[in-house]
Amino acid sequence: MLFSIYDAAVVCCFLQYRKWDLHSLKLQPLSPVPSDIEISRAQSPKAVDVLAKEIGLLTDEIEIYGQTKAKVRLSLLERLKDQPDGKYVLVAGITPTPLGEGKSTVTVGLVQALTAHLNINSFACLRQPSQGPTFGVKGGAAGGGYAQVIPMEEFNLHLTGDIHAITAANNLLAAAIDARILHENTQSDKSLYNRLVPVVNGVRGFSAIQLARLRRLGINKTDPKTLTEEEISKFVRLDIDPSTITWQRVVDTNDRFLRRITVGQANTEKGFVRQAQFDIAVASEIMAILALTTSLQDMKERLGRMVVANDKKGQPVTAEDLGVTGALAVLMKDAIKPTLMQTLEGTPVFVHAGPFANIAHGNSSVLADKIALKLVGEKGFVVTEAGFGADIGMEKFFNIKCRASGLVPSVVVLVATVRALKMHGGGPNVTAGAPLKKEYTEENLQLVADGCCNLQKQIQITQLFGVPVVVALNVFKTDSPAEIDLVCKIAKESGAFDAVPCHHWSAGGKGAVKLAQAVEKAANQKNSFKYLYSLELPIVEKIRIIAQKVYGAQDIELSPAAQSQVDRYTRQGFGNLPICMAKTHLSLSHQPERKGVPTGFILPISDVRASIGAGFIYPLVGTMSTMPGLPTRPCFYDIDLDPITEQVKGLF
Amino acid sequence: MLFSIYDAAVVCCFLQYRKWDLHSLKLQPLSPVPSDIEISRAQSPKAVDVLAKEIGLLTDEIEIYGQTKAKVRLSLLERLKDQPDGKYVLVAGITPTPLGEGKSTVTVGLVQALTAHLNINSFACLRQPSQGPTFGVKGGAAGGGYAQVIPMEEFNLHLTGDIHAITAANNLLAAAIDARILHENTQSDKSLYNRLVPVVNGVRGFSAIQLARLRRLGINKTDPKTLTEEEISKFVRLDIDPSTITWQRVVDTNDRFLRRITVGQANTEKGFVRQAQFDIAVASEIMAILALTTSLQDMKERLGRMVVANDKKGQPVTAEDLGVTGALAVLMKDAIKPTLMQTLEGTPVFVHAGPFANIAHGNSSVLADKIALKLVGEKGFVVTEAGFGADIGMEKFFNIKCRASGLVPSVVVLVATVRALKMHGGGPNVTAGAPLKKEYTEENLQLVADGCCNLQKQIQITQLFGVPVVVALNVFKTDSPAEIDLVCKIAKESGAFDAVPCHHWSAGGKGAVKLAQAVEKAANQKNSFKYLYSLELPIVEKIRIIAQKVYGAQDIELSPAAQSQVDRYTRQGFGNLPICMAKTHLSLSHQPERKGVPTGFILPISDVRASIGAGFIYPLVGTMSTMPGLPTRPCFYDIDLDPITEQVKGLF
Repeated sequence: MLFSIYDAAVVCCFLQYRKWDLHSLKLQPLSPVPSDIEISRAQSPKAVDVLAKEIGLLTDEIEIYGQTKAKVRLSLLERLKDQPDGKYVLVAGITPTPLGEGKSTVTVGLVQALTAHLNINSFACLRQPSQGPTFGVKGGAAGGGYAQVIPMEEFNLHLTGDIHAITAANNLLAAAIDARILHENTQSDKSLYNRLVPVVNGVRGFSAIQLARLRRLGINKTDPKTLTEEEISKFVRLDIDPSTITWQRVVDTNDRFLRRITVGQANTEKGFVRQAQFDIAVASEIMAILALTTSLQDMKERLGRMVVANDKKGQPVTAEDLGVTGALAVLMKDAIKPTLMQTLEGTPVFVHAGPFANIAHGNSSVLADKIALKLVGEKGFVVTEAGFGADIGMEKFFNIKCRASGLVPSVVVLVATVRALKMHGGGPNVTAGAPLKKEYTEENLQLVADGCCNLQKQIQITQLFGVPVVVALNVFKTDSPAEIDLVCKIAKESGAFDAVPCHHWSAGGKGAVKLAQAVEKAANQKNSFKYLYSLELPIVEKIRIIAQKVYGAQDIELSPAAQSQVDRYTRQGFGNLPICMAKTHLSLSHQPERKGVPTGFILPISDVRASIGAGFIYPLVGTMSTMPGLPTRPCFYDIDLDPITEQVKGLF
Repeated sequence: MLFSIYDAAVVCCFLQYRKWDLHSLKLQPLSPVPSDIEISRAQSPKAVDVLAKEIGLLTDEIEIYGQTKAKVRLSLLERLKDQPDGKYVLVAGITPTPLGEGKSTVTVGLVQALTAHLNINSFACLRQPSQGPTFGVKGGAAGGGYAQVIPMEEFNLHLTGDIHAITAANNLLAAAIDARILHENTQSDKSLYNRLVPVVNGVRGFSAIQLARLRRLGINKTDPKTLTEEEISKFVRLDIDPSTITWQRVVDTNDRFLRRITVGQANTEKGFVRQAQFDIAVASEIMAILALTTSLQDMKERLGRMVVANDKKGQPVTAEDLGVTGALAVLMKDAIKPTLMQTLEGTPVFVHAGPFANIAHGNSSVLADKIALKLVGEKGFVVTEAGFGADIGMEKFFNIKCRASGLVPSVVVLVATVRALKMHGGGPNVTAGAPLKKEYTEENLQLVADGCCNLQKQIQITQLFGVPVVVALNVFKTDSPAEIDLVCKIAKESGAFDAVPCHHWSAGGKGAVKLAQAVEKAANQKNSFKYLYSLELPIVEKIRIIAQKVYGAQDIELSPAAQSQVDRYTRQGFGNLPICMAKTHLSLSHQPERKGVPTGFILPISDVRASIGAGFIYPLVGTMSTMPGLPTRPCFYDIDLDPITEQVKGLF
């Protein structure tokens, strides 16, 4: 084999650590801090192809979508497969107030500090937000203040269409289920067979996906003429039990009237009505698959494995049985590529996937993290984010996402706010939309001290996984110096590697330089990462370990329905999957009003469900809403488009 | 004011006719003709930025989406506003068989001939197909054989997300309607007012969209504190009558079980259940608006004007009343830009909008046509396409689309096939999926001669509008020379400017050169274009003119429901809109089985509806399905993705 000097130089250049020659965008923060959209609009982003070149992407590795977004091809993973990964940093949080404590802004602030101020290669990997809340209650999710992804309206709207692709794939499968039941109910075996395996140009043959089904049924025949009547019946009838259908339709809209509906009421559906529901698009199992998959081949296999119902004998019916795997993969072929954007300071960001954090695992994609780890190189940093508090998002990051990726995290950044700590210390309720009580706007060291128990507990949870933890105190302008010092002192006493106040919201990356330095040091610490449980344990045992070790529960209690589902999944061969707890994020327990560190509670498991394609079992701790609603005055009242300048107004 | 030599040169260069220096892609047609996806894949498209440059687009006038698609900014219309338009050619058809007679392939073949073979600037403007049928029955819609838009899988799948944007906007409005009814039903005036006009940072103010609503209500106040109780009640209550809601939710999936549903059955919706339905996304009024709008400002106004229901006093309730106009415009801000693609021979194509051809007007967008007419320049050609037969698609093109655009067409190309003419001449039924009877595969001059009555009638319909017509006979391999000659002879005798057999499907643009030459000649003919009716006429009179002059009906007959709707729309001030007939395309009459030229029939109008934002009244002639279903064996059985090459298989 020839190996020329040129080849050697190329290989060498890719594998050596290369500090990016990245032109950062300058910030001149204003005081008071303007609205997010005003800050975003005041900055001119770099052309995305310029950014791509700066971080070592080749021209044919990107697909540009307009001036500020590009999809990155997975072929890069093959090109850089021998490149050592960078350091892998997870941003998690303490148990939050309903207002959120700023994990996304910390994530963005940290990479702005690392790259624009310390000249260290870094990448932020963020979740794509659902468009529903953008027009409903919550507003945008691109970070905030001077730590944002820009243009924020692109981030918060269609982006590069991934959620739309998920919606299309999800709903094609849903339509296929009901249509199949109707056709099976209204046709004989023979008629079904003639339609499923038609004569085309005089020839009758099985399609590839039908041959695969025959093999699964143990029918080793390839000529449609040779099947016995019994084999034909087995082949043509999925025999779905409509009462077991778990596959729901989705829309990316906060549409509360679709939470429970009856479908099939037109005459053409011949009376086969049933109750169903729509979920918000990001609750689709396909979103969880997008977040966990590692390649096109792996995604296709996961899509095919998705269980949508049971048949009348209690056996799982999959997307593959419905013959739709290939079509789903085709619909998702572009969505699998992460989208490149940039922070306010011109450093790179991947936006990719955004699964629910309760019924799914609430983390951005494995593929974005993997690609970013190659691009930053050995001495660089990839900062990724987990939804909810560390008890939920981080636990799932370790036990589900890291298992899927095989990646080992270097550092956890645990985000805390004085506000949330005061709440845990016994402060009054914090409610979205209502003004904050004075306990939160005036110094109150006692409330802070009392509330640090939650911080301490979340630090301990992190330590269960053997990864060093740096506490990032996201400073608000009403926090007093004494409050800030107190939190950092307690955090360090509780085992944090370091604890640092952060001012990225008002100051950009400059305000997170100390955090960046602490993270860099922590990344060089000894790391003894381990999972919390072995997959081989029975489902109930895995749930109990999470409940006791992470949440601090005394024990768990399964409802009869939950127990029967556990038995069913175990019988169906799904007992070895990891667990994805669907629990409130507002308390370590299942009761949102119990703040601080609740103890002595029995965690009730009301039901147990499964996302087999994504690859996890999800026990329900209470009722999880999978469809938000519109309030009396939705955000959309303030959103407008200037028809002359084409500028979006009122997004925040 | 300074006017330098440089400026003069630039202006001059833009306004003079410039023959493109376009590098066409060579074709080497195979025989037998391979599948559409194989042909598409065998050709390497030009990079879209290269194509854009060739046709005179500036770098900042395009937004690239991957390698083969780009959105074109509307700013170009301002830059080229003094440039004379090119010739404007409409492709319409005779009354088709259920298989379609190839209008899209003629459109593509014609521009391939004009530009790649005759070196004349030309643009094809096509409709974007719904993704539903791609996975259901019909397959793709990018043309076919050697007259296609490539890459055909991009054309047939997400494209640049316009239909997804329409779905999002449509469903946000739908969710807003039901949520608003719920909130009004469960809150006092005071509570609604406090929520709709909240105190934010100590200040209480109306949003821009609320101030506009106050003005519409005749309340000339701007301070929320000064409204009387009565004014508050008027302001906060839209008082929608749920039984009058005409706004439906949409999905871009063939989901028959959503044709009739009951929504609101979750406890959280407090018993406010109602019957509703989902339509396929392209049936949304927002799609019709996208196709008819002329600017961002115009689109925003149309979106605001959309009527979604009546209030309990019988007054129309609009999107603007719900406060959602700005949000809808924001969701549609990219969709308004046409998407640039290319034919198999590397000539430019716009893909933009694809409204239904029955309940809407079935034409691609005004904006794509307008931009293309500037880009081709005075001696160039823009070929656009109307859905269904000329009695429907062309009539709506003239009376609705040309009215909205102000553009004057130069030539109509009327597509005919020997197959469809034989059907009109008394040949046996043609059914999708079933093999063709021998009448259609063997020479039968009598059937052809008898069926030419339909062609003759469609020529006469075209002449009503004063535009020259060229008949394009889309030749199939089973057509005999005598059959072809007969059709062309009868067409010319019937008043066509010319009639030409076309072979683009098997030969590409080379097979349509004679058609292109005929069209070029016809475009220099005298043109006395006129609309068929005045908008000032009463609604019923306008319907009657279309029924009698175009369809050949003896008269029309309105059901009581239809008459009452006509009265309502007239009372509400919508009487001056053009008419968009929702009639079967399979016959000139309302009865699909009546082929040829039916006479003596009374056209029954069962109901009358309105798309006020799009700007037309649509009478229903029979039942129109707005949601296709999946058959027993949908197309998706054959669709697959190769995970290594990333190639799509099985689309056709």
